[in-house]
Amino acid sequence: MPVVAVVLAAGFGTRFDEDNPKQLVSLGGKPIVCWSIEAFENNDRVSDIIVVVNDRVEETVSELIDQAGYAKVRAIVPGGAERVDSTLAALDLLRQSGIPSDAKVLIHDGVRPFVEQRSIDGCIDALDRFNAATVAFASTDTILLTKDLGDRKVVGSVPDRLDAYRAQTPQAFRFGTIVKAYELASADPDFHPTDDTRVVVDYLPDEPVAIVEGSETNLKITTPSDMPIAEGIANSLDPEHVKEAAKARMHEVFAEAFSQMHGHGFGR
Amino acid sequence: MPVVAVVLAAGFGTRFDEDNPKQLVSLGGKPIVCWSIEAFENNDRVSDIIVVVNDRVEETVSELIDQAGYAKVRAIVPGGAERVDSTLAALDLLRQSGIPSDAKVLIHDGVRPFVEQRSIDGCIDALDRFNAATVAFASTDTILLTKDLGDRKVVGSVPDRLDAYRAQTPQAFRFGTIVKAYELASADPDFHPTDDTRVVVDYLPDEPVAIVEGSETNLKITTPSDMPIAEGIANSLDPEHVKEAAKARMHEVFAEAFSQMHGHGFGR
Repeated sequence: MPVVAVVLAAGFGTRFDEDNPKQLVSLGGKPIVCWSIEAFENNDRVSDIIVVVNDRVEETVSELIDQAGYAKVRAIVPGGAERVDSTLAALDLLRQSGIPSDAKVLIHDGVRPFVEQRSIDGCIDALDRFNAATVAFASTDTILLTKDLGDRKVVGSVPDRLDAYRAQTPQAFRFGTIVKAYELASADPDFHPTDDTRVVVDYLPDEPVAIVEGSETNLKITTPSDMPIAEGIANSLDPEHVKEAAKARMHEVFAEAFSQMHGHGFGR
Repeated sequence: MPVVAVVLAAGFGTRFDEDNPKQLVSLGGKPIVCWSIEAFENNDRVSDIIVVVNDRVEETVSELIDQAGYAKVRAIVPGGAERVDSTLAALDLLRQSGIPSDAKVLIHDGVRPFVEQRSIDGCIDALDRFNAATVAFASTDTILLTKDLGDRKVVGSVPDRLDAYRAQTPQAFRFGTIVKAYELASADPDFHPTDDTRVVVDYLPDEPVAIVEGSETNLKITTPSDMPIAEGIANSLDPEHVKEAAKARMHEVFAEAFSQMHGHGFGR
């Protein structure tokens, strides 16, 4: 039974830096997309990986995968303008490859580098009992649902905190289930999902979607202001990197100290 | 017109480290509660600060405030078992001090060290037009409202992402409004709010609560796993700290290098 991870790395990151595709930005010395691919490469239960890219990053991602020697990556496929187009590109490829309808498919944001192994395992396990599952993290913040009051947003309602989860990824489906949900959705002219789980919730409302425990650190890198947070997590995961970074900073500190002592730009 | 900040630092942090009260843990060389107090101390429009503590941290917090010389702190008051008891302790003190019912009161979690000045200003401004406001941050994650299916949580509904905000603090009220909401609430035997905004939403449903823009970095420190994230933010805010930390790590790196070269614990 194939367990396929689809890593979506086709975003243009308009809220990030236009000249610097976020999936290629380095965290602790490793591009974000590599963190995401490795999470599945390192999970023994995942059999295959598909990486979805855009024109701009395709060549670099392809080189990175070659250099790293990720053995499970079966295809690097071009995505589309919207997230949903990228998911559909991967599902099309899987259909062409003839995978069975009960294969397990885990769809992951390529810019969530810190997904934990227990969340990936949790998805694979949940699909033994459910046809759809999503990693989600219980919100430590109270969630407010807002409404517009003239030009101003105000609180509309406050759901019970114990029921409010932040959706993360992977989002996992039996192949036949996600294909069917997208078929129904594509017949709807108002279809603009931002999320694969939402497609199942909206178009297969009788299909329960199981919650799989995520983590605070499984964040999606969206804006440059997420980078200090992500660096903090990367440092905590990789003590070697901390040492390397400390050495690099040591040189900076020395250079600055010398510069202050000698009044010139020594070492820069 | 008084603008009073109430900093709630009475939590026992049961999800943190029981032997290490989280409000006293150091971030970038400064205890978390001091970051929170300073945010209001440094805002020219805030006139007074009340800090709510528990027995365990009272003495230390008091010393920290003395040492730092925070000039706006008017009182350090004991809180209660629940967050609501701590808010009520502060409101009682304000009533005894005779502040007017249209005074502006900003209630802040003492373990949200990185609140931005623009959010504090936003609260003070919002109260010119509304009697209640809360800092909140548009969720970058899709929010899932869950329900129980036997022993498992499953997705119940998915609100529109544009309407889903994560409540942060400060939460700001005209004094008369928050007092009235709590009076109505205290008559309700099922009253167990986790949040001051919720008290207004539930007991004064006709009172609109304005949303004030927060930030991803205005996080609430809840568990030890939040600390690497918080360190990353503290580092990004304080370049001096980065240099100090780099020097400290430099010594570690040298000590380790020597130890490896010479086979002993040199420098430790």
